[in-house]
Amino acid sequence: MARRMELPGSLAELSRALWSRELSPVEVTEALLARIKSDETNAFITVTPERAMEDAERAEAEISAGEYRGPLHGVPVGIKDLVFTKDVRTTMASAFFEDHVPDHDAAVALRLREAGTVLLGKTNTHEFAYGPTGDRSFFGPMRNPHDPARVSGGSSGGSGAAVATGLCYGAIGSDTGGSIRIPAALCGVVGMKPTFGRVGKSGVFPLAWTLDHVGPLTRTVEDNALFLSILAGHDPEDPYSVDRPTEDFARDLDRGVRGTAIGVPTSFFFEHVEREVGARVREAVETFRSLGAEVREVEVPNAWETLHAQRLTLAAEAYAVHEERLKSEPERFDDQGLERLLRGEELRAYRYANAQQRKLRSRREFERVLEEVDVILAPSVPIPATELGQRQVTIEGHDEAVYSALTRLTGPTNMNGLPSLSVPCRTTASGLPVGLQLIGRPFDEATLYRFGYAYERDSDSAH
Amino acid sequence: MARRMELPGSLAELSRALWSRELSPVEVTEALLARIKSDETNAFITVTPERAMEDAERAEAEISAGEYRGPLHGVPVGIKDLVFTKDVRTTMASAFFEDHVPDHDAAVALRLREAGTVLLGKTNTHEFAYGPTGDRSFFGPMRNPHDPARVSGGSSGGSGAAVATGLCYGAIGSDTGGSIRIPAALCGVVGMKPTFGRVGKSGVFPLAWTLDHVGPLTRTVEDNALFLSILAGHDPEDPYSVDRPTEDFARDLDRGVRGTAIGVPTSFFFEHVEREVGARVREAVETFRSLGAEVREVEVPNAWETLHAQRLTLAAEAYAVHEERLKSEPERFDDQGLERLLRGEELRAYRYANAQQRKLRSRREFERVLEEVDVILAPSVPIPATELGQRQVTIEGHDEAVYSALTRLTGPTNMNGLPSLSVPCRTTASGLPVGLQLIGRPFDEATLYRFGYAYERDSDSAH
Repeated sequence: MARRMELPGSLAELSRALWSRELSPVEVTEALLARIKSDETNAFITVTPERAMEDAERAEAEISAGEYRGPLHGVPVGIKDLVFTKDVRTTMASAFFEDHVPDHDAAVALRLREAGTVLLGKTNTHEFAYGPTGDRSFFGPMRNPHDPARVSGGSSGGSGAAVATGLCYGAIGSDTGGSIRIPAALCGVVGMKPTFGRVGKSGVFPLAWTLDHVGPLTRTVEDNALFLSILAGHDPEDPYSVDRPTEDFARDLDRGVRGTAIGVPTSFFFEHVEREVGARVREAVETFRSLGAEVREVEVPNAWETLHAQRLTLAAEAYAVHEERLKSEPERFDDQGLERLLRGEELRAYRYANAQQRKLRSRREFERVLEEVDVILAPSVPIPATELGQRQVTIEGHDEAVYSALTRLTGPTNMNGLPSLSVPCRTTASGLPVGLQLIGRPFDEATLYRFGYAYERDSDSAH
Repeated sequence: MARRMELPGSLAELSRALWSRELSPVEVTEALLARIKSDETNAFITVTPERAMEDAERAEAEISAGEYRGPLHGVPVGIKDLVFTKDVRTTMASAFFEDHVPDHDAAVALRLREAGTVLLGKTNTHEFAYGPTGDRSFFGPMRNPHDPARVSGGSSGGSGAAVATGLCYGAIGSDTGGSIRIPAALCGVVGMKPTFGRVGKSGVFPLAWTLDHVGPLTRTVEDNALFLSILAGHDPEDPYSVDRPTEDFARDLDRGVRGTAIGVPTSFFFEHVEREVGARVREAVETFRSLGAEVREVEVPNAWETLHAQRLTLAAEAYAVHEERLKSEPERFDDQGLERLLRGEELRAYRYANAQQRKLRSRREFERVLEEVDVILAPSVPIPATELGQRQVTIEGHDEAVYSALTRLTGPTNMNGLPSLSVPCRTTASGLPVGLQLIGRPFDEATLYRFGYAYERDSDSAH
């Protein structure tokens, strides 16, 4: 049994304790490395104790010398194992890259290094990030911290599980159809898919170039805002990166929501949602109303078409990314992953071209709604965590593939690039987490954090 | 025989004569309408004498009242017949739209209207702009002003022929694989494909959304700069439009080229170029050297791959645009157009996705070269105008489809979106025009005009 030292519950608290020298990065890192040893969620593919202790000792020396790098200085983190880390194995959870050690850091890995974080290790992921369950990794399935028979969600399931079980204070995830927000919802943590282009992707192994987003998973909204403030910024090596001034996303968190307007979609986002999940999210709507936000019904047109376009784009680009491997060594893929990948081969180019037109229209459709309201509110995922290996689910009489159900409500914003934050609601009666999804205007992550923070603070005070 | 009144040779001269009231817009318009009656190039699909006279009379009244709208005020122009014009038939040169009268102006048509231009009519185009020869239009082939047995080039062949024969002072064209620059080169006029996003495309019938560019054809470089200054600017209805301040492109034309550097590609752009065309372009290189520019050999990598990516993108998007028509009434297409369009159906989505990655890399490859030199210089088209109906050509022993040869050197910049200007060189011994292509940095059309102007002025003084 690992030693259980009393550690702060949030990154923000830890940060204050480190800076005031109540806690030492070395002590905290040792405690977390001990916890990781007894992890039962399979959250890490590679643990890096030596690197972690080096990072921690450097942070401790710097902080002692008064050289403060910022709120992530000395904070132990995890990095999804498709983000390249110099001299640290990066596997994509695939047999192909079982022994792959990059010679350079991804832009975001470098940002975390420069922020003074402590790298605990590389978090597990669905193979090549191509799956929302997290139960298909060359390094074994991730398990849900709230029920080991259930999935963590994916693909960033290791990041979700590690943060939820207190193995680290934040972790990088990536999200192509929901892969940050789904594990955040299913594990009960906060996950942000920022605006497309906000966080640089150079050195992040692609799943689908035009849909991939990188962002943080953390325990609290404030933690997430602090983490994104480090990840965000122009990446000249990423052709999709947008050159915008960096922001301190944690600055205006406590402005409240009085006088704002929340949009509750009348279609798509509340269709085929498991009863209890829907109820939790409706309760959250009432919470916002009680906090002074106006609640309006809104119509987000053509969301199904946008979802279909996202799925076609994903299938085509994933096939393009893996074409050579699929032709030369198909047997090295997970069998379910292989089957999915091969479905991308036959898709027609003109349908892909049409999907890109849908992307442009979808952006406009969402933006029109967001002229009327400050955020759109929806469930992140229509069901709680499913069982490991489960592939079909019945939701209020509607049969659906688990894959489809899990990604259904998150996929559209991967297509149109709008920022989307998943924040934990109240759990189901059986104790499984439910995620609330907030969708905002392009590059307006700050507003999503402000809403998430108001909701979280109200929930905390209610406990 | 139409009356041949003595008219200024350039838009800029006309503009000065109109403003000083040496000439009246009404007189000029009447003279041009008379010329159009005896046009033998088939440059116009629809001539609009009533609208022209109204526009001219309004301009005359305004100019007389001292209300000067700018350098295009009172200037007679043509508009390619896939640019929507309110209450003026817009056919795309297709049987499908034989009687199609839009109820609104395209953004660029509105800009010309607000600039006080006189609309003479709608210029002929290859059917749906899908062909570089201009000899396949529902309204009959366009003919080369320098040899009626030869093509005008396309797809904006009517605009090229109309400007070259003095039927108008400038015309709008569109360019998806070279459709402005090819007729400019083959007819001996100036044609600009601006940076992707520079000129708004709302109300312009698409050929391929991600490759289409709108720009001007004129007799001189200065005219072109004046014309583009009117067309350029943000178009909120065009999702590809870039919001940048408008520029006066004619402002710094006469800065010369001393101290600049010109890049002459060592591969691709001078491969399979007809001997006489290559010689004319090499002479132009020497002209620039004599004007004080440094000439450097440059390597533009992967240009063939970029061209192939452009062609695949074009075929896929054109199929997507016409899918319903192809399924419901294929017989209404020109037979050659139909054959080309149908080739887009089977293309695979993953190859299209790869082509979009090539686009990003190509932009970077060209931009790297353009860090070393101010412009890249090449032939616009590797051959002079071919004969009407000709479909194969042999270039210095290399057999090629005419379609392929004509678009080969212009296609790459449709893919990467860089601006490209075609300026007339000296003609071949048999009097056929040759075009010099200048490629520049994104949104740096001003530099292309500066080089074109220096070259043109030197050529004029040599005559």
